[in-house]
Amino acid sequence: MGHFDDSTGLEVLDRDECLRLLGAHYLGRVAFTVGGHVEILPVNYALVAGAVVLRTAHDSLLATHVPGHEVAFEIDHADAMTHTGWSVVVRGPGEAVDDPGERASLARVPLRPWGAGRRDLWVRIRPRSISGRRVVHRGGRL
Amino acid sequence: MGHFDDSTGLEVLDRDECLRLLGAHYLGRVAFTVGGHVEILPVNYALVAGAVVLRTAHDSLLATHVPGHEVAFEIDHADAMTHTGWSVVVRGPGEAVDDPGERASLARVPLRPWGAGRRDLWVRIRPRSISGRRVVHRGGRL
Repeated sequence: MGHFDDSTGLEVLDRDECLRLLGAHYLGRVAFTVGGHVEILPVNYALVAGAVVLRTAHDSLLATHVPGHEVAFEIDHADAMTHTGWSVVVRGPGEAVDDPGERASLARVPLRPWGAGRRDLWVRIRPRSISGRRVVHRGGRL
Repeated sequence: MGHFDDSTGLEVLDRDECLRLLGAHYLGRVAFTVGGHVEILPVNYALVAGAVVLRTAHDSLLATHVPGHEVAFEIDHADAMTHTGWSVVVRGPGEAVDDPGERASLARVPLRPWGAGRRDLWVRIRPRSISGRRVVHRGGRL
């Protein structure tokens, strides 16, 4: 599945495992810049053909500041009882999905936006890099 | 507790509720820039005297790129079964905690870093702004 980073004690997840985790979850966070400042927002997403897609309103921060820019997207999971945890980070350019055929295809994706209201814009983040880590502890995963 | 944003259907949480949520959780994500690119990393944190504090290694990305820079920090929760969800975002400058007295005080904070290894550097994010949203749906919270 991966290998261990001795300096951090974290297991480094390989790309296939990262994609599996991305495909198995639905809530992530997008980090992007707005006027030189970093912003971060939670989003519901889907993994479609290896890319992260999300829906937003045409006048949203995401619509304005993600397409055409390099952004980062993250999912994670932690369990306080067992001290297990993992995270996956996707980095790459955001883009608005304008192609009618692609939009029609995406309309069938079961993706519920975080908020209500009209959210007709599909935004895609194409992974330029994907990295994942799993928290492990001495003696195995706790 | 807050008010509703009719354009998004989200409940806007007031500062007290945001601080309550920050104090009740332990896993968040820091978004910051590295060489002009946005990076995002999960961290275990604690809320101490109204600020977000975390521990990291002296040579980590967090140690190198958070102190002295404006960053964003986020926590959230979502429940797939009930479609409830909320998020809190803190924005502000990061700083290394150098004062010996403060470091001694922080050493008593029950904060387990995300990874293993020596993590002797305390980094604090002082909120310049705090905002929170809760997902609500027609007819009340689902």
